[in-house]
Formats: sequence, C-alpha cells, structure tokens
Amino acid sequence: MTDSSQKHANAFDLIAPINKGLSSLQQATPREEIVQCGWNLLREDMSLPLAVLYEDRLQHNLHWMRQFIAAYGVKLAPHGKTTMAPRLFEMQLKAGAWGITLATAHQSLVAYTHGVRRILMANQLIGKENMAMVGRMLRDPTLEFYCLVDSAAQIDKLGEFFSASKRRLHVLIELGVTGGRAGVRNDEQLQSVLDALTRWSDSISLCGIEIYEGVLNDEASIRDFLQHAVAVTRKLFAEKRFHRAPVLLSGAGSAWYDVVADVFSTAHFGDSVEIILRPGCYLTHDVGSYRKAQEEILQRNPIARQMNSCLLPALQIWAYVQSVPEVDRAIIAMGKRDAAFDSGLPAPALHFRPGSAMPRPAPAHWLVSKMMDQHAYLQMDAEDDLRVGDMIGFDISHPCLTFDKWRTLPVLNASYDVIDVVNTYF
Amino acid sequence: MTDSSQKHANAFDLIAPINKGLSSLQQATPREEIVQCGWNLLREDMSLPLAVLYEDRLQHNLHWMRQFIAAYGVKLAPHGKTTMAPRLFEMQLKAGAWGITLATAHQSLVAYTHGVRRILMANQLIGKENMAMVGRMLRDPTLEFYCLVDSAAQIDKLGEFFSASKRRLHVLIELGVTGGRAGVRNDEQLQSVLDALTRWSDSISLCGIEIYEGVLNDEASIRDFLQHAVAVTRKLFAEKRFHRAPVLLSGAGSAWYDVVADVFSTAHFGDSVEIILRPGCYLTHDVGSYRKAQEEILQRNPIARQMNSCLLPALQIWAYVQSVPEVDRAIIAMGKRDAAFDSGLPAPALHFRPGSAMPRPAPAHWLVSKMMDQHAYLQMDAEDDLRVGDMIGFDISHPCLTFDKWRTLPVLNASYDVIDVVNTYF
Repeated sequence: MTDSSQKHANAFDLIAPINKGLSSLQQATPREEIVQCGWNLLREDMSLPLAVLYEDRLQHNLHWMRQFIAAYGVKLAPHGKTTMAPRLFEMQLKAGAWGITLATAHQSLVAYTHGVRRILMANQLIGKENMAMVGRMLRDPTLEFYCLVDSAAQIDKLGEFFSASKRRLHVLIELGVTGGRAGVRNDEQLQSVLDALTRWSDSISLCGIEIYEGVLNDEASIRDFLQHAVAVTRKLFAEKRFHRAPVLLSGAGSAWYDVVADVFSTAHFGDSVEIILRPGCYLTHDVGSYRKAQEEILQRNPIARQMNSCLLPALQIWAYVQSVPEVDRAIIAMGKRDAAFDSGLPAPALHFRPGSAMPRPAPAHWLVSKMMDQHAYLQMDAEDDLRVGDMIGFDISHPCLTFDKWRTLPVLNASYDVIDVVNTYF
Repeated sequence: MTDSSQKHANAFDLIAPINKGLSSLQQATPREEIVQCGWNLLREDMSLPLAVLYEDRLQHNLHWMRQFIAAYGVKLAPHGKTTMAPRLFEMQLKAGAWGITLATAHQSLVAYTHGVRRILMANQLIGKENMAMVGRMLRDPTLEFYCLVDSAAQIDKLGEFFSASKRRLHVLIELGVTGGRAGVRNDEQLQSVLDALTRWSDSISLCGIEIYEGVLNDEASIRDFLQHAVAVTRKLFAEKRFHRAPVLLSGAGSAWYDVVADVFSTAHFGDSVEIILRPGCYLTHDVGSYRKAQEEILQRNPIARQMNSCLLPALQIWAYVQSVPEVDRAIIAMGKRDAAFDSGLPAPALHFRPGSAMPRPAPAHWLVSKMMDQHAYLQMDAEDDLRVGDMIGFDISHPCLTFDKWRTLPVLNASYDVIDVVNTYF
C-alpha cells in the first residue's frame, strides 16, 4: 500500500509525545520505533484514558466481511470516514477490499497521501479548493477516483473547473428519496443531470449509480429503493450513458449491507456491473447501535447466519477510577472528549486492578449513567470492590465518533502488549 | 509565553497539509509562514468545511472577562480544555490570566510543552504514567502545578509515587455534593483526607480548596455550596492546614462564575486567599447553552450589567451547500465530525455566494434540523435563494466539543483574511 520510500517522508506521520496516551515518548517518533518500546497496557506504560484496538478481533472482523462479500460475489470499498486511519485502510485493502470509500475531498487526500489508489468519495464534490485538491491528486495516473453528482448546478461547476484544468472526473449519479439526504429524487431531476453530463462530456465521465439506503429505516422501503437503483442502472445502461465497463453500482452503510448485497446481486447484471458495498463500522464493530444492526442482519440473512460467528467489538477505551465519593458511584476519568455518546454511552466490559494478573469481566450491573466533557459517572452496588486507581475497559457505541477523539490508537495482542500503533487524520 | 528558541523545535507544531481546510499547503509548514500566504475565506483559498475564529471577537471577549475579573478583585485561570490551543492560552495569559486550568495530565503536558508555567489541573491525578508525566514536568523549577485530591486512597498513591521520586506535589482539596461528581462529601471524608495529607507531608503540600459548582443547577444550592467552601477554607486556615500563602480558593465553570465571584469575594479573606475562577467558554462563547447562561448572568449580576456589552460568538463553522434536492431542504457538507451537537445544533448565521462582495445575515427561519456524521439538513422556504456551492457560516453551541473536531483553526480579521492560525492538541 504505502510506498516504503514514503514511509518516513511526512513529518505529520510521526507520532507526537503530546498525543493522548503517549506521554512516555520523549520526541516525535515513527510508528515502527514505538512498536519496539515493549509497552503493555496492564503495566500502565501508557497514560489513560486511552483508546485501544485488539489485533485478533480486527483480523476476525476483516475475515468475516471478506467471507460475506465473497459469498455474494460483490466487492467492498469500506467507508474510511469511520476510522480515518490509513494503517487500517491498508489492512482492509490487504484483506481484499476493492478500494476505500471516503466522505470528503479532505478525507480522500488523507487516503491518497498514504497510498490508497482507488477512492470512492461517496459525496458531492463542491467548492473551489476541494475541486483543486482532487485535481492535484488526479495528476497521478495511477489514481482511480470517483465522486457523486445529483444536480445540474453541481455538474456545471465541476465541468467548468475540470474542463479548464484539462482533467477528467469520474462520477456516479446519486439517487435519493424524498425526505432523505442528497440524491436525485425523480425523473425530471435525473434528466436534468443527464443533460448536464452531456454538456460536459469532454471532462466528466459517468461511471455508475450510487445510493445510501441508511436514510430509510425499514426493510421494505429499502428494498424498493434498491430496486429503483437497479432499474435506473438498467435503463441508463441500455441508453449507453455509462463510460465505464463494468458499470459501478454502489450502496450500503453498516446496518443494511446484507439487504443491499441481496437485492443488487439478484439483479443478475453479470460482468456488466461491479457491485460495491461500503460498510465502515464492521472493522471495529461496537456493542451499541451496530451490534443491534448486526443482530438483525444475522436474523434475516441466510449467508450471515451460515457463517456461524459474528462481528466482535475491537475498540475499547481504558480509563481510571478517579474517585469513589459515594458507595454506589464511581467517577471515571473519561468523557465526551474520549468516546462517542450519541447512540449509547460506553459500557464497562473489563475491570483490572494494577498489580493483578489479568482483567476480569466487569459486573453486568455496572452502568455509565452520564458523561461530561472529561468525566463519566459509573453506577454500581455499594458492596462492589471498585477502588480509586482501578482500570476499566469500556466497550463503545458508534466507532466513527470515538475514533475522531484520538490521534493515535495502540493495537494490542491478547496479552495487552502494544504490537502496532494507528494514526488517525481527522 | 513560548520561548522563541522553542518555537520551531517540535515537529508536531508544524501544520500539516492534510489537516482539514489546509490542503493548499504542499508540506508541513510553521504557523508564521501560513499567516504570510495571504489566504482569504471568501476567495475559497481554504477547503470547507472549516472552523474559524474571529480576532476582533476574541479580543472583545478577552477584554470583557479581564474587566469582570478586575471588578471583583479575583483571578482567572481559564479552563484550557475548552480549546486545547496553546496559542489561545498565550492570548489569555497576555490578557492577564493568573494561569491556565486543565483537566488531565495529558492536557497539562500540552500546556507545559507550549510554555505555560502555572497550571491548575482541576482533577484528581491518577495512574502511574499520569503521575510520571507530572513528575517529569516538575523537574522544571519554574513550573507551578496544582491538582486535586478527594480521598485518602488517592493521596496514598500520590504519596508513594512522589515520595519515591523526591518531588513535592501541590494539591487542593476538592469539595463535592451528594449526587455530584468527584469531591469530599462530608466531615468524615474530609478528616480522612486531612489525615492522609499529614501522613504524606514530606511530599504533598495542601495549597487550597476547590469546587465545581456546575454540577448543581440552581442559584440557591450553588450559593450554599460556595458558602460551604468558604467555611471549610476558613476552618482549615485557622487550623494552619495550608502550606501556601496566600491560600488558593477556586471555583467556577462558564455558567455560574458571577455567583462564585460574588460569594467568594464577599467572604473578605483579604490577602490571605487568592480566589481563582476557571471559566473556559467565555473566549469563543456560543449562541446556544453559553449564550443562555450569559444572559442569566447579565440579568442577575450588577457588574456584568454595568459593563454594557456582552460576550460575542467568536467561533464559526463554514460549509458548502452540496445539494438542494427538495425546494425547502438543503444538504450541507458539515456534520458531527465538524461541530458539537450535544446542546443544540449549529445555527446558520451568514450566507455567502462565491463571487459576491460580502456575506449577508442568514434568514432567521433557516434551521439545521438534523446532523449526521458528515452532513447537515437545512430547512428553508421554497422561495429562498440558496444554491449548490453557496457558503454558510454557522454559529455553534458548546465550543469544547467543536474545538476537538479540528486540529488547526484559522483566525480571521473583519475582511475574512487569515491573520493567524491556531493548532489544537486533543
């Protein structure tokens, strides 16, 4: 993935001793050297709070999704916005991903700078410097880059820019639903987009169709929307509107990718269409909204059921008990600055007393009842043995908004040794 | 503040071209050089979305708080966790702040590394590497560092560490309320803390009393709690428990600092006590929870009223309209990855069409109805003139959780020229 010649070239890839958790570094240090420090979480070699990834669980999840995708004969462009960690993009590509999905020009630049050469920017490209950024990346003939269009107004702006800069931009038409997010709503809008694409055919190539089904909440509506995408793809294919063979047809967030795989693959496009799924959260999974979504997938999807295993939560936040001011309340040194809180608060998973052998499962009745910017309130029973200085490992809900609180995340093996570190670029 | 010799010493202080907004940089660049680029927001020299600060409003707010603090004869240690931007700490110290408050050992290290030499860590210090970090900073005899204690268990751990490392740690006792956060709840806990301090008097010095009144929600309870802090301070002073003259007495988040100033200053401690207030959000203010809190301060506090001006929102997020898929709905390229959303969504303040002269106030009926990770939904009227590619400047609610989404924020003058850039270190 990353050119080895490029590995140390960027000052911003060095890991700063003032990143959370890494204060025992004395200076900005390359990843490879940190891995050799011999740090261990349970020996308290790093400061807490600290977000960590578990290597075995990441590998399990990579393998799980690879199998699922293969069973459907579709392709994977995992959404990189979840982690914004090029080291994890590298793992995903190594595990067979077709490319990486990103949400913005900035995110695309981060991926490109770290060696990703097939990018699906699942969003409209808007604005002078965002276009300029993409234009500069496109000087590299090895880069395959796609973004979305959904209005003539937007295509005219793209056409003016890329025509003037003599670069060709590859786009997918985004289809949307009324009351939803971006995307063409009806035939009239679609025709207006197609007309605009015809006007700018010297600089813009239509390569496929894209939808995001996650704006809908029930399977029946989602299946209808997906069938609509199939029908539009078929129609534009018959009209020879596409300038890519195979045509790209892409959908799927992290909650309905099984339904997307099912509907798109049973359209039987054969070799004329590449189906690209874009889930992002499968890599670290969680114990909140995505565990719930995955349980539903296991219920409704026969292939997922046959796989006889599920995704595992691979991201945890470790934090100290800083105060036990009342017999049934502990104050934890972890807050909204450290973990997502918008779809469920972190859940105590492991309890470790420094000096003991290994963490033990946290009692099921321990509950985070509230989070402030830098603190969490943990409810427990008066007789529980929880002390100031104890460490708690929390599972999380919503990996996207947890990753963006961290600039560096250590990767641990089963003995809690640091075997890798992952930088994020938000 | 920052030694000029140190200014370029840290690779992690260079500004990376892959930080959001700054893609037109070609390489990691020092702050001073970026300021000379001649960038202008309205010319779209930076990519959006982008968080920006307004110099005139920052200066106004700095001046406002300086006057308020002076009128009460108290001192200010603004909470640095809000911004985690050493460049802003520097401005706050230049505007007369006594020191900077931080929430964690990591945050303290960030401030120390950037030249802050008086730190109030308004939290318990817990954990081996957190203590080691503080121990290393304390090798510098010019550093004045305080943290909180609230239990014998915690003090015993601190005592063991600092006694072994032959450093002296300066602490304040935190007082708390039942149902609240950390802090001593009753006389029995207080006595246990005092006994532990006596045990470790060779390495720990009691320097004052600290409370955070923001866990309470009504003025009467807050005044009671503050009076309790005054009484404890008086009692421990009479018992000669403090090893600092003057004693430190500290309270105040961003919502009740006027009441804290009132109660603490009318305790008439004279020169024997330094009163330290710790609001953090005054610097950028907002148009949500802190505007509401400030309106209440202006209502109840005679000094704030006499000042005849209020704090101004100094932090905005600029973003593009990426799609107008329905006549009354625009999709904005800004999401939970860019702005706080936990106490009110961003509010459209300014509307600018690239190529026009200056932004105009956004119509009052424009409303962000929903935010996803990378998108916002803007409700408008069907006849409104809002187009794809237009720029909107959003005011925010809750600066703390907005700052932590950004690694670099440009500072603009009234013409939207970039006259400074501010790095954050979360």
